Amino acid sequence: MNLIDRLREAVGGAAVLTDPDATEGYARDMMPLAPAGRPRAVVLPADTAQVQACVRACAEAGVPVVPRGAGSGLTGGANAVDDCVVLVTTRMDRILELDADNRLAVVQPGVINRTLRDAAAEHGLFYPPDPSSLDWCTLGGNLATDAGGLCCGKYGVTSDAVLGLEVVLADGSLLGTGRRTVKGVAGYDLTRLFVGSEGTLGIITRATLKLRPLPAAPGTIVAAFDSVARAGDAVNRVVRAGLVPSLMEIMDATSLRACEEYLRADLGAGDGSALLLCQSDAGGVSAAAELDAMDGLFREAGAEWTHATRDPTEGALLLRARRVSLPALEARGACMTEDVAVPRTRIADLMTGCEKIGSEAGLTVAVVGHAGDGNMHPTVLYDGSSAAEYARARGAFDAILALALSLGGTVTGEHGIGKLKTEWLERELGPVSMRVHRQLKDALDPAGLFNPGALFTRRPAGGRTA
Amino acid sequence: MNLIDRLREAVGGAAVLTDPDATEGYARDMMPLAPAGRPRAVVLPADTAQVQACVRACAEAGVPVVPRGAGSGLTGGANAVDDCVVLVTTRMDRILELDADNRLAVVQPGVINRTLRDAAAEHGLFYPPDPSSLDWCTLGGNLATDAGGLCCGKYGVTSDAVLGLEVVLADGSLLGTGRRTVKGVAGYDLTRLFVGSEGTLGIITRATLKLRPLPAAPGTIVAAFDSVARAGDAVNRVVRAGLVPSLMEIMDATSLRACEEYLRADLGAGDGSALLLCQSDAGGVSAAAELDAMDGLFREAGAEWTHATRDPTEGALLLRARRVSLPALEARGACMTEDVAVPRTRIADLMTGCEKIGSEAGLTVAVVGHAGDGNMHPTVLYDGSSAAEYARARGAFDAILALALSLGGTVTGEHGIGKLKTEWLERELGPVSMRVHRQLKDALDPAGLFNPGALFTRRPAGGRTA
Repeated sequence: MNLIDRLREAVGGAAVLTDPDATEGYARDMMPLAPAGRPRAVVLPADTAQVQACVRACAEAGVPVVPRGAGSGLTGGANAVDDCVVLVTTRMDRILELDADNRLAVVQPGVINRTLRDAAAEHGLFYPPDPSSLDWCTLGGNLATDAGGLCCGKYGVTSDAVLGLEVVLADGSLLGTGRRTVKGVAGYDLTRLFVGSEGTLGIITRATLKLRPLPAAPGTIVAAFDSVARAGDAVNRVVRAGLVPSLMEIMDATSLRACEEYLRADLGAGDGSALLLCQSDAGGVSAAAELDAMDGLFREAGAEWTHATRDPTEGALLLRARRVSLPALEARGACMTEDVAVPRTRIADLMTGCEKIGSEAGLTVAVVGHAGDGNMHPTVLYDGSSAAEYARARGAFDAILALALSLGGTVTGEHGIGKLKTEWLERELGPVSMRVHRQLKDALDPAGLFNPGALFTRRPAGGRTA
Repeated sequence: MNLIDRLREAVGGAAVLTDPDATEGYARDMMPLAPAGRPRAVVLPADTAQVQACVRACAEAGVPVVPRGAGSGLTGGANAVDDCVVLVTTRMDRILELDADNRLAVVQPGVINRTLRDAAAEHGLFYPPDPSSLDWCTLGGNLATDAGGLCCGKYGVTSDAVLGLEVVLADGSLLGTGRRTVKGVAGYDLTRLFVGSEGTLGIITRATLKLRPLPAAPGTIVAAFDSVARAGDAVNRVVRAGLVPSLMEIMDATSLRACEEYLRADLGAGDGSALLLCQSDAGGVSAAAELDAMDGLFREAGAEWTHATRDPTEGALLLRARRVSLPALEARGACMTEDVAVPRTRIADLMTGCEKIGSEAGLTVAVVGHAGDGNMHPTVLYDGSSAAEYARARGAFDAILALALSLGGTVTGEHGIGKLKTEWLERELGPVSMRVHRQLKDALDPAGLFNPGALFTRRPAGGRTA
């Protein structure tokens, strides 16, 4: 039996797509810069046993498998390679258990992030990771990339919320990792090895996730500064004061102007060069005290103005500028969005460095980011119809990555490496770490079945890892 | 040159011990039940380069290396095997950096846990992991076992506090993992793979650790219950109410009586069957509100009495009973102390099950534990001079492990597997996970150089992993 027939037998004919018009929609994620091939088929298994059957069929046929959730990724991590099978987990979309007494949920990988958040909230519980795509991204994709969001300075990233996994390995066998207990140290931390491995080691078919008590509705404070250096100083003062805001975002002047135009609203930033948006979800007098303390620190750092509100609706309106920043920039032209992270004390250095890189390239670089954890999203704006501008934009994109590394940072804070930054992974980690990465990949996926081209560049010779 | 000469060349003659009277002191940790061999030598390197030289020398000689910190472990994880070299990291005891602005510390593995806590506190910062041995255990050992403590329900375990590592691999090469940024997802989570790997994959020579703002001095509440079922119900109510106490410990009647005798004090528990000791470090009105809320929940659960105090000195006195529980039990006879963890809702089931196991074995089983995270330390008391009682105690010890697994728990919450529970690791994880464990071990340490006998039982045939 050929591969397509075996896949049809495994998942049913309607769940195997081979028409290029149909498969094309599953060949790319949201990052246009990363390479993508043409899949030979797309399969949509309905349960773990079907995933195992598909993996076994592909392994025996020697055909690579690219796992995929909703396709909201920003690094080409779920992009097809030529002649692969794209395995889509979106049909596996059930919350299998929500155990409020032990504050955990057991989910399939196709559950939408928002769906779990809403279900948890009904029990007074909270699933923190909140990537911008939370309305449509899947938890499986969040797990594959170790996704973050706006909450991370206080509540951590996806891996901080995972207790255990069920994973289909390259030979089709089923691995359970982790536990249902709060604590547990039996054996290697396989859970964390698979989280963030971007589909290169196995396919996650189930996850046990930690939930937290639902925090209070947040209070919000906004502050405008006449330089990014002053805004960066304000961030340092918040960290030094021992405050842990539930959200602390920074926007530069270009982003602010773009958002004002996009929203047709005056954000009141005037000619200000940088805006900080912060929240406290500590509740009651604690939130009031946190907001007051931030207000004082922002004034000490030379804020032009500050505005605080305990009204959640007004807070959400103030945050709207941050949330629309990428579409607002896209309204101005083509965008290349970065995802670097630097130590929190180097945020201002990164922002001024980005401005310089843009100016040298004759392009605009806008910066928004998670000031609470140092994860910045500089965006290079360029004319998409000009090959010359595209090339200059790529140069600026790479210069920002080099800048982040020179500041003691990383080339990816939350989006991952995917098929976009494989060379930069080598630059960041160096040869010993890459050798260890390849040893682990070869140990668990010796034939290079899963997601070839993600994380790893092809080896010069003799190696197995694609 | 023979191995001993090479080691002397690497670290200097005074840092290589070969006299059995001297090496014997490094052959065991604090768990008498685990097997231990006689080392051929003990080396005490002073820096990373010396660790690399020792590892290379041992690798070339085909002599296993057992890494060791202070030897405070409770699973024989640092116990020697015959003819091995014990590599002791206690001379590498410097805090290399304390960066208050980025809330992180860079340390060598021989730094005492307490030393880092005190250094962090001088900057208004907090290193949460607090194993009972914190006055003398090393951070290297804490990292190897992923140590916990009393703080974990609120602040997590050691792995939650690690940003990055420097590790000497089996070929002597030096691996850097992780980062200095709050967020970062570049590549596999190698940091978490090495943390908790109990010295089987490499030797940690440096760690970058996250620090938190120093919390407020805690307020304390104690409550007595006439049954463990009622105390367990009280724990469930705290979790359900969305409270996260900074400490929540439980003690059964046997432990209470032992502590009262040991301290020659009346803890006021009367004939009570279980005591809960809880703290809030939320500070000010938040702490008062948390303690009040717990007080109400404990009364609803049928507490015989409750007593709350905001005075940290009185709180420390109340906690003293919990802190002396192991020496208090040891004053009654020989002890086998367990380290199981169960879902928080099953704490009462575990405690009543332990009582039954003790009664069937004709022995006393005392239980104290971290109710906030479900990590329980049942202790089997027996007559150390009676071989028959020892055998019955071992039977009870194993029955408690089986009970924890049957309740959805794990055989180790924070102490690790070491050389004590290797068979139980297989029982807990099953054959697929053990295969993956061995694949990873073989990928990184193909000759089985590091800590043979820890985590893994010897394979039946053909395998490389000792």
